[in-house]
Amino acid sequence: MPKKIINKLRIKRKAAPKTSQTVFTPPGTISYVGVHREGEVVTETIAYGPEHYEKHDKIVYSLPNDYVKWYNLDGIHDIEKLKKIGKRFDIHPLLLEDVANTTQRPKTEFYPNYVFQCIKMISYDEKDHDIEQEQVSIILNEHEVVTFQEQTGDVFGSVRSRIENNHGRIRTSDSDYLFYALIDSVLDHYFIAIEKIGDYLDVLEDEIFNDPEKESLNKVQNNKRVLINLRRSVYPLRESISRLLKEESRFLQPQTKAYFQDAYDHCIQIIETIESYREINTGLKDMYLSSVSHKMNQIMQVLTIISSIFIPMTFLAGIYGMNFEHIPELTWEHGYMYFWIICAVMFVGLIVFFKFKKWL
Amino acid sequence: MPKKIINKLRIKRKAAPKTSQTVFTPPGTISYVGVHREGEVVTETIAYGPEHYEKHDKIVYSLPNDYVKWYNLDGIHDIEKLKKIGKRFDIHPLLLEDVANTTQRPKTEFYPNYVFQCIKMISYDEKDHDIEQEQVSIILNEHEVVTFQEQTGDVFGSVRSRIENNHGRIRTSDSDYLFYALIDSVLDHYFIAIEKIGDYLDVLEDEIFNDPEKESLNKVQNNKRVLINLRRSVYPLRESISRLLKEESRFLQPQTKAYFQDAYDHCIQIIETIESYREINTGLKDMYLSSVSHKMNQIMQVLTIISSIFIPMTFLAGIYGMNFEHIPELTWEHGYMYFWIICAVMFVGLIVFFKFKKWL
Amino acid sequence: MPKKIINKLRIKRKAAPKTSQTVFTPPGTISYVGVHREGEVVTETIAYGPEHYEKHDKIVYSLPNDYVKWYNLDGIHDIEKLKKIGKRFDIHPLLLEDVANTTQRPKTEFYPNYVFQCIKMISYDEKDHDIEQEQVSIILNEHEVVTFQEQTGDVFGSVRSRIENNHGRIRTSDSDYLFYALIDSVLDHYFIAIEKIGDYLDVLEDEIFNDPEKESLNKVQNNKRVLINLRRSVYPLRESISRLLKEESRFLQPQTKAYFQDAYDHCIQIIETIESYREINTGLKDMYLSSVSHKMNQIMQVLTIISSIFIPMTFLAGIYGMNFEHIPELTWEHGYMYFWIICAVMFVGLIVFFKFKKWL
Amino acid sequence: MPKKIINKLRIKRKAAPKTSQTVFTPPGTISYVGVHREGEVVTETIAYGPEHYEKHDKIVYSLPNDYVKWYNLDGIHDIEKLKKIGKRFDIHPLLLEDVANTTQRPKTEFYPNYVFQCIKMISYDEKDHDIEQEQVSIILNEHEVVTFQEQTGDVFGSVRSRIENNHGRIRTSDSDYLFYALIDSVLDHYFIAIEKIGDYLDVLEDEIFNDPEKESLNKVQNNKRVLINLRRSVYPLRESISRLLKEESRFLQPQTKAYFQDAYDHCIQIIETIESYREINTGLKDMYLSSVSHKMNQIMQVLTIISSIFIPMTFLAGIYGMNFEHIPELTWEHGYMYFWIICAVMFVGLIVFFKFKKWL
Amino acid sequence: MPKKIINKLRIKRKAAPKTSQTVFTPPGTISYVGVHREGEVVTETIAYGPEHYEKHDKIVYSLPNDYVKWYNLDGIHDIEKLKKIGKRFDIHPLLLEDVANTTQRPKTEFYPNYVFQCIKMISYDEKDHDIEQEQVSIILNEHEVVTFQEQTGDVFGSVRSRIENNHGRIRTSDSDYLFYALIDSVLDHYFIAIEKIGDYLDVLEDEIFNDPEKESLNKVQNNKRVLINLRRSVYPLRESISRLLKEESRFLQPQTKAYFQDAYDHCIQIIETIESYREINTGLKDMYLSSVSHKMNQIMQVLTIISSIFIPMTFLAGIYGMNFEHIPELTWEHGYMYFWIICAVMFVGLIVFFKFKKWL
Ligand SMILES: [Mg+2]
Ligand SMILES: [Mg+2]
Ligand SMILES: [Mg+2]
Ligand SMILES: [Mg+2]
Ligand SMILES: [Mg+2]
Ligand SMILES: [Mg+2]
Ligand SMILES: [Mg+2]
Ligand SMILES: [Mg+2]
Ligand SMILES: [Mg+2]
Ligand SMILES: [Mg+2]
Ligand SMILES: [Mg+2]
Ligand SMILES: [Mg+2]
Ligand SMILES: [Mg+2]
Ligand SMILES: [Mg+2]
Ligand SMILES: [Mg+2]
Ligand SMILES: [Mg+2]
Ligand SMILES: [Mg+2]
Ligand SMILES: [Mg+2]
Ligand SMILES: [Mg+2]
Ligand SMILES: [Mg+2]
Ligand SMILES: [Mg+2]
Ligand SMILES: [Mg+2]
Ligand SMILES: [Mg+2]
Ligand SMILES: [Mg+2]
Ligand SMILES: [Mg+2]
Ligand SMILES: [Mg+2]
Ligand SMILES: [Mg+2]
Ligand SMILES: [Mg+2]
Ligand SMILES: [Mg+2]
Ligand SMILES: [Mg+2]
Ligand SMILES: [Mg+2]
Repeated sequence: MPKKIINKLRIKRKAAPKTSQTVFTPPGTISYVGVHREGEVVTETIAYGPEHYEKHDKIVYSLPNDYVKWYNLDGIHDIEKLKKIGKRFDIHPLLLEDVANTTQRPKTEFYPNYVFQCIKMISYDEKDHDIEQEQVSIILNEHEVVTFQEQTGDVFGSVRSRIENNHGRIRTSDSDYLFYALIDSVLDHYFIAIEKIGDYLDVLEDEIFNDPEKESLNKVQNNKRVLINLRRSVYPLRESISRLLKEESRFLQPQTKAYFQDAYDHCIQIIETIESYREINTGLKDMYLSSVSHKMNQIMQVLTIISSIFIPMTFLAGIYGMNFEHIPELTWEHGYMYFWIICAVMFVGLIVFFKFKKWL
Repeated sequence: MPKKIINKLRIKRKAAPKTSQTVFTPPGTISYVGVHREGEVVTETIAYGPEHYEKHDKIVYSLPNDYVKWYNLDGIHDIEKLKKIGKRFDIHPLLLEDVANTTQRPKTEFYPNYVFQCIKMISYDEKDHDIEQEQVSIILNEHEVVTFQEQTGDVFGSVRSRIENNHGRIRTSDSDYLFYALIDSVLDHYFIAIEKIGDYLDVLEDEIFNDPEKESLNKVQNNKRVLINLRRSVYPLRESISRLLKEESRFLQPQTKAYFQDAYDHCIQIIETIESYREINTGLKDMYLSSVSHKMNQIMQVLTIISSIFIPMTFLAGIYGMNFEHIPELTWEHGYMYFWIICAVMFVGLIVFFKFKKWL
Repeated sequence: MPKKIINKLRIKRKAAPKTSQTVFTPPGTISYVGVHREGEVVTETIAYGPEHYEKHDKIVYSLPNDYVKWYNLDGIHDIEKLKKIGKRFDIHPLLLEDVANTTQRPKTEFYPNYVFQCIKMISYDEKDHDIEQEQVSIILNEHEVVTFQEQTGDVFGSVRSRIENNHGRIRTSDSDYLFYALIDSVLDHYFIAIEKIGDYLDVLEDEIFNDPEKESLNKVQNNKRVLINLRRSVYPLRESISRLLKEESRFLQPQTKAYFQDAYDHCIQIIETIESYREINTGLKDMYLSSVSHKMNQIMQVLTIISSIFIPMTFLAGIYGMNFEHIPELTWEHGYMYFWIICAVMFVGLIVFFKFKKWL
Repeated sequence: MPKKIINKLRIKRKAAPKTSQTVFTPPGTISYVGVHREGEVVTETIAYGPEHYEKHDKIVYSLPNDYVKWYNLDGIHDIEKLKKIGKRFDIHPLLLEDVANTTQRPKTEFYPNYVFQCIKMISYDEKDHDIEQEQVSIILNEHEVVTFQEQTGDVFGSVRSRIENNHGRIRTSDSDYLFYALIDSVLDHYFIAIEKIGDYLDVLEDEIFNDPEKESLNKVQNNKRVLINLRRSVYPLRESISRLLKEESRFLQPQTKAYFQDAYDHCIQIIETIESYREINTGLKDMYLSSVSHKMNQIMQVLTIISSIFIPMTFLAGIYGMNFEHIPELTWEHGYMYFWIICAVMFVGLIVFFKFKKWL
Repeated sequence: MPKKIINKLRIKRKAAPKTSQTVFTPPGTISYVGVHREGEVVTETIAYGPEHYEKHDKIVYSLPNDYVKWYNLDGIHDIEKLKKIGKRFDIHPLLLEDVANTTQRPKTEFYPNYVFQCIKMISYDEKDHDIEQEQVSIILNEHEVVTFQEQTGDVFGSVRSRIENNHGRIRTSDSDYLFYALIDSVLDHYFIAIEKIGDYLDVLEDEIFNDPEKESLNKVQNNKRVLINLRRSVYPLRESISRLLKEESRFLQPQTKAYFQDAYDHCIQIIETIESYREINTGLKDMYLSSVSHKMNQIMQVLTIISSIFIPMTFLAGIYGMNFEHIPELTWEHGYMYFWIICAVMFVGLIVFFKFKKWL
């Protein structure tokens, strides 16, 4: 591999979350299903208007009504905090259960008091050459957006800076545009991850063609798993955005539709790229198997050439090593030379045969 | 296999039920199609209200009308008992036939006096590392739920305890919530089983990559069978829950819809996981075939290296074992040493060649 | 194969019928397309009511109007007879052409004077372990059912006995229930055939895993053909029954709908089982290929082990068989013993190497 | 191959037509896209009524209005003739472009003055064992049908003879029945071609099973190409006939619908057969690969058996060919006999081992 | 390869464009995503009417209103120019972002002031035997068409010459016909590229069958990538044209619909051809694997034949090379001749055996 693009392709998670622990609780019981995590939950409030911007390192509800407020919470393992927020925004217990369940399938739900969006955030880690996945749940209501994340760190940096620096139309728009901007930012990072995967597939294709190793097929199988995983994140997202486009909600304004249409477009493009990569990855498997067969052919050729040349000549040498009392050739004056001549003829004949067979 | 997760993956059944025995009976004839079973049928009645809870080890019909009553019957091989219950709840003979047929496809039917649900219950046996399947038929009417099971033992323990201990909203809800809670509990156990299968696929992937044995592909084929079987249990269930969401029935109250929506969500997630596992399992087959090819390559390399080195040298030794009267080399003073030098040169040359070919 | 379940799986037909002979006739020309058959056509009339039952070995039209009449004709090669019946029941020439064409695709057609059903009857022959297929065309009108079969013998024995012995509700129902009962009986025999195929696949799986023979893959290919054939018989049947459920016809009474719903259910179950078997059969092909590869590996291991052990030792023996005048070892006192010691060391070394490689 | 059914399966065309030459002409420019052809265009007019029949070897427009007229033109390379006919029947330039383009996809178009049908005619050549394809475009208006063919020779012989000899209902029907009869005749010849392909697949299956040659897989690939080609001809035809059944046109009379329904039926059956053959053909590929693997196994067995038997014994002979001064066995009285006994024991032991391994 | 049709099949691009650079900009920010390019943007204005034609090497807005104006811009890397044109035609910032993004998926959007079409232009380079792809965005409004291209050079030569020389109906039609003519021209060049790919697949099939090289499967994998790429360009185009046919827009006149219908037809045909080629390409992969297996079989046959003949005879020679004191055969008068007779018998026997096995 000339350049390190991606370590063995995988979605990085410290441990697989276990859903089974929630089996014996009643529906609507909020229990954290995710990678074990301890420590403080990090919260943040950003409030802005066309002429205004402020930021707090905690949840602040007491802000003027005409500002757009973005409440962000990193860490959904703190069930009590979840419940308190759930109460403030009147979130249905079944939805809070979904927020705390990091294995939740992406989906959109329209409730009278809010729109709920679950989405899988993908980010490419430039340093470790790794792809990471994190679930974000978003609540949209009038002038307010709430985001729930699994871990600290997200892909919303450019959104924050556009708000702070008043870039684009975000400061002059309402909370639905912020809602869109977050989804758009998630989709943009899918593009980055997918571009890296595309580069990785190219490098792996060269590796498999030139020097297939046992590990190569393991990589192909890993790619398969990752692409299945990504597909399972994006397919439901397309459905979600399609619903955001079609269904009526008082929190989604008509002028934002063009933006969701653009996001829908990107979503389709991501899906098509993933499907292409799945097919290309299947092709890598075929290339691997054929490279291995090809190598076996080469090994067999070497064995066959050497055996075919020397086994008959060894037989000839064996004959004149016999101890019969009367072997006339042994007493010929040039017997030994004739032996070498016969060997040379056989050798040349076989070489010509193998040249003809294109084995040499 | 470092840790025992699952014995050879299979749906455990003592024997395959035979449908053919029902061929010569008229439609609507109730005949038990299932694993042979003898002995008493176990029955149970649980009745509850917001302030009330009682439990009986038999079917008790004479309970107050405003209680929610859950009648459970373990053992559908007793046709007479089935018929008696069928009469009490006015169940159509064709449905009773389905109750007694353990090969029935999951389905929902809306009748004027009840809703009928057939479902496949999956449970993971922690002790035997085995997955078991059992058919449950559920009848829902006003304030009453009837469940018909094949065997003693089920996945409804948490429902029973929530009723007894008044956890969640079950005691304050009507029979349709109980109906939902049973389906939800079945779905929760699908998640457990599927999680175990996922772990098993990981272990099997390592086994196949590191040390593929003949048995490995048999395991892959068994996985295929189990995943086909699970898919056949869950796909119709999605359709069932979708109908429970969409069709009108006086036994299903509007406020329960949000719960069925959640169950539908889980059902989709189970289906998507099964489909992913099917693809991963197909990948295991490819890995197996390539691991076997890789092993063959290694074997061939050893054979080729040893043959290629020793066959030519044996020929050389054969030459100087010949009995020609005039072989000048034999009389040279350092002939024997020269022989060894030639052998060493050939040996080193071939080793270099194999190093170059990356066979060593 | 421990037990004979099925001879080489195939749909038994004496010869493939040729459709090409009908090319030069105008549409609506009735010409027999089927396995060549001579001899009399066997006919039968069964007439019944709640209190009445009679049976005749010929077609009898002069029976009381309020009886349900079932006219059965075994042998559609007698075009004249077909035409006469066609005239009596006013059957469209294009439909009569379909009746006589045993390659007709299953279908339902609604005409003002009758409902037409074409269906493929499958029966498992217990004696020959064979699956047979035969086309049945059914005409339903008020109080009358006509069945056209290719050959003597059918799967309607249980229907006949239920009529004769007044089992179930058949005697108290009209001709549409008889129509249903015939279709139900055909479906029941699909279940039997499919159960046998399932057992056969299990046996074949064991055979392929334990002792793959060249014939095995031929069996897999035959299974593929049979399952394709069955699928082509059942898929259109689902569509047919769905139309019988949905379309209005004065010959189909509302109370029979529940029965057709049940038949539809069974049809879906048959289709799903066939699809499962097709996937399992594909898995058998993979197992076969991998079993063959595994066997090749074992053969190569034996060859490599024996060659690797003896070829170097043969070289060593060759050296001391050389006739150089000065080979010091030959004159050593324990030379021969040293030779054996070296051989033993090489032998043990290689055995250890092969143990390490897990080839032994 | 016991009997010649089909030469290497292919759709016979003298040369691939090139569409690229039409790139630089405006849309609606009529240019011949097809196999190069020179010489006269053959034309023919058949006019008939219930009591009337006449035939001319040229296009005759001046025939009584109440006759049905069929104008046939063999040769669409004469653009001027096409344009003249196009003008007489008021055909849209884009449709005339399609008539002259032999790579046009089958389709139906409804215009106010006519119905346009493009169809691919398949014919099996009994003499050369070949399948030929030719495009026919059909124009239907009141009392008139025009057919445009690529080459002389078609599959309409039976239609012509039915008109001439007044067979069936064609003489008493209008031009829409003639239109149907032509399509029906094309479909009938698909059945013949498909039957031949089915027979060919059977023969090829036996060839691959018993004696796979390198050429065999080439045949399988050719079948794949032909079946793809046929599918591409018939799938759009189903759509076409479906439109002829559903859309209103004053040129299609209600009583002809039953006939188009029958044609639709046949079309579905052809499609299903082609799909089955595609699956069976895929199975042939698998059989070929496994037959080749099986043959390799047999070759390896022979090599392994002979090597395993003789290499160790050759080592033994090598030992006693050594020239050590003190090899005690050489001086034993029965040494040579003991040598043979050891060889015999080794021989028998290995034979037993190979019998046990089922390699012998 | 007898004739050079296509160099290793690939879509030629100097470098893969990177979408990731657009991540940190707000939606609607126009940033060039494409192969790096410097230098002047080339612009062109063509204006025409039935009696008029003029051409300018720059954008000229001040032309009479009743002319049809075609503004062409080669080079979308100049963001300022894009913005200026965007302003003149009132193009939405999100669409301008798509114009500058060469990875945009083909699509059609209807805005009140214009119709937007993104399309992928394919051209076959006769000189380099290469296929090139370029994105074109088209804006249609009343009497005006704007085209945005990535690079200089396009497939619109025939459209330009038809305008200049007044061929066909383009000069007498409005801007919607020009819009159609551009799309039609793009589709025509797809046909050329696809024809070349078809020829290339034929040549590659012969290469793989006759002389499979390691490079061959790489070519097959490249074909797969190209066909996936083409499919991703054409599938959305079908959807686009279908929308142009169905949706109302004041810029699309009814009489142009027949032309878009024809384009739709061509689009379907291109898609079907691509799908066929994908299947044929998959067949090539199977042929390659089987050709490689076949070659291995031949190698193994040579090895086995030579080993089987000479190894036993070498053993025989070894026996009579032993130094036992009493080997009676050595003293026989014709011992040496008998040895040769035995060898000849063994040789002939093995040759007969291999002939019987069809290995010779
Ligand atoms: Mg729970
Ligand atoms: Mg729950
Ligand atoms: Mg985070
Ligand atoms: Mg974006
Ligand atoms: Mg590459
Ligand atoms: Mg966009
Ligand atoms: Mg029955
Ligand atoms: Mg029944
Ligand atoms: Mg139970
Ligand atoms: Mg649950
Ligand atoms: Mg792993
Ligand atoms: Mg949930
Ligand atoms: Mg006919
Ligand atoms: Mg006909
Ligand atoms: Mg018919
Ligand atoms: Mg019969
Ligand atoms: Mg039944
Ligand atoms: Mg088994
Ligand atoms: Mg039933
Ligand atoms: Mg043109
Ligand atoms: Mg054109
Ligand atoms: Mg012709
Ligand atoms: Mg016909
Ligand atoms: Mg056969
Ligand atoms: Mg951006
Ligand atoms: Mg953006
Ligand atoms: Mg350009
Ligand atoms: Mg065109
Ligand atoms: Mg070819
Ligand atoms: Mg056209
Ligand atoms: Mg192989």
